[in-house]
Amino acid sequence: MKKHNYSAGPCILPQEVFEKSAEAILNFNNSGLSILEISHRSKDFVAVMDEARALALDLLGLTGKGYQALFLAGGASLEFLMVPYNLMKENGKAAYLDSGTWASAAIKEAKFFGETVVVASSKEQNYNHVPKGYEVPADANYFHCTSNNTIFGTQMKEFPNLDMPIVCDMSSDIFSRVLDFSKFDIIYAGAQKNMGPAGTTLVVIKEEILGKNGKTIPSMLDYAKHIKAESMYNTPPVFPVYASLLTLQWLKKLGGIPAIEKINNAKATLLYTEIDRNPLFKGAAAVEDRSNMNATFLLNDEAHTPIFDALWKEAGISGLPGHRSVGGYRASMYNALPIESVQVLVDVMKDLEKKVSKTRL
Amino acid sequence: MKKHNYSAGPCILPQEVFEKSAEAILNFNNSGLSILEISHRSKDFVAVMDEARALALDLLGLTGKGYQALFLAGGASLEFLMVPYNLMKENGKAAYLDSGTWASAAIKEAKFFGETVVVASSKEQNYNHVPKGYEVPADANYFHCTSNNTIFGTQMKEFPNLDMPIVCDMSSDIFSRVLDFSKFDIIYAGAQKNMGPAGTTLVVIKEEILGKNGKTIPSMLDYAKHIKAESMYNTPPVFPVYASLLTLQWLKKLGGIPAIEKINNAKATLLYTEIDRNPLFKGAAAVEDRSNMNATFLLNDEAHTPIFDALWKEAGISGLPGHRSVGGYRASMYNALPIESVQVLVDVMKDLEKKVSKTRL
Repeated sequence: MKKHNYSAGPCILPQEVFEKSAEAILNFNNSGLSILEISHRSKDFVAVMDEARALALDLLGLTGKGYQALFLAGGASLEFLMVPYNLMKENGKAAYLDSGTWASAAIKEAKFFGETVVVASSKEQNYNHVPKGYEVPADANYFHCTSNNTIFGTQMKEFPNLDMPIVCDMSSDIFSRVLDFSKFDIIYAGAQKNMGPAGTTLVVIKEEILGKNGKTIPSMLDYAKHIKAESMYNTPPVFPVYASLLTLQWLKKLGGIPAIEKINNAKATLLYTEIDRNPLFKGAAAVEDRSNMNATFLLNDEAHTPIFDALWKEAGISGLPGHRSVGGYRASMYNALPIESVQVLVDVMKDLEKKVSKTRL
Repeated sequence: MKKHNYSAGPCILPQEVFEKSAEAILNFNNSGLSILEISHRSKDFVAVMDEARALALDLLGLTGKGYQALFLAGGASLEFLMVPYNLMKENGKAAYLDSGTWASAAIKEAKFFGETVVVASSKEQNYNHVPKGYEVPADANYFHCTSNNTIFGTQMKEFPNLDMPIVCDMSSDIFSRVLDFSKFDIIYAGAQKNMGPAGTTLVVIKEEILGKNGKTIPSMLDYAKHIKAESMYNTPPVFPVYASLLTLQWLKKLGGIPAIEKINNAKATLLYTEIDRNPLFKGAAAVEDRSNMNATFLLNDEAHTPIFDALWKEAGISGLPGHRSVGGYRASMYNALPIESVQVLVDVMKDLEKKVSKTRL
């Protein structure tokens, strides 16, 4: 039976990525060798890394605009630490928007390095919305925000205009919607949502902002060193980078971000319309901040939980339970999730409504 | 044609690892989902991580001896930084043995954190041997060494007995030979030689040595945090960990380290015997320090280079050129390289001798 994978990440990737990457494990580029056993310095893998870096910038519309793309290891959580290490000045300060669990984790790490101003937080409301109307101290070394809050199902629709570097954690919505990416000076994203399997992190950096905080930085945490080494300062995570390249190639063929944005909008509209229409359900996040990637929703009556859970499991749906901080359900609709899978979920929600109303008669 | 892969890392892995990991990309554990799209918190992947951690300790003979195994991201180069962050005290010092390029890179990172004493170095002799007869300052917070020097083809045969934590970078010879691993307090190794594909690093830690340097450590660099989170502090590199587990399972089935050590000794004996016998070649490293993993050797007469290069390429050998710091050739004979591949290389060396002597007549 076909599975409908709503996992919040690692998550569904295009079928052709699975097929091509499995093939490359048995015989990469018809070399008679596996992608897992070739040197990262081989001509074939250097070409993979170069293409992945160039294609990431191309898809974001950042080619020729002074940006560099890196595929690092360590996960986005390592960037929580690398960003202040590279940008925070001695006795400087950084400004952070606290819009969710991951934003909060980034704030915690920044505090190791210096004064960290939280310009606004929606924590008291269990992060059910994105804070707005905040002021950013003009003397901050940079401003950090999180574009999509995976756990709570909220997404930033507007980004501030500031006279300082803007750093954005786009782990869970990069490559999913059209934005003016040149507004940002550092964009980082763990691969395991819209870009590839777990094991690599894309970091896109406007090169001119580096080298200005007067600090010596340990080599592995120094963006400038990774740029100079063309993302091969040490052995990169070869397979995750390759599978990410395959995913970016799939997106490019599809028509890039404008094309996938239309599909993502259609999927989100389909599901949120049903959440709002169906009397058994309610959305968890503020309507104006709803994420097109992660839709969080709850049953109005928890007594319906066992029957709903049985129905979606029967339909081949997996990964739907919500994060423990929110409860209920979370439908993660990343780029590779087909709209057919959303229709299956919507059908199950309608089916539940019928079954419940029959019981009531 | 069958390839004989002598790559220095990433390198050859067992054929069954390629086959099983390709299968898991198409359908993992018969779940209908790819290993690339499942949650790292899923029951199936938690089982992978738990088994990989337990099996690593089991193979090293460290089960029940107060050790924890972690599969981290970032590469062994990140450990160059994590080790001093976790072990070096305020105004403390660390002792390092400089036996090669990677040892030297570890020393460079330690210097960010405090006084770093190099107890001995073979740099002046282009690292052609492992320094011996050194003294380690009794007040050092720890001693760091590199068990195998991939680039220069040397290997430590003896390790000092010290009243301080001993940290060893075993990236290029872990799981290859019988050692009393309980002599070490931290062992780390990038996966991409004897353990799996690039993208994860095994760190084995004697838990009692942690938490003693009185420093606050950024979360992602804190071994104690990773241990508490059972190696899932953040999303781990799922596929590299899975492929590493498959490699460790292969080794366990084979009979563990004692069994592979015999095979590795036989391979090394076969090749070094030919290097010493064949008048056209000479070894690059001091005989007593020769590595069983990476054999470095040179042609006595560089004029024979084109014909030798043509011969080994014709025989299906790849990855044989030496690192630019040594020149000549490097045959990396990691665990998964079959002795048949070594025989093919030896035959090519003998063939060269015949061809050269014929030309002379």
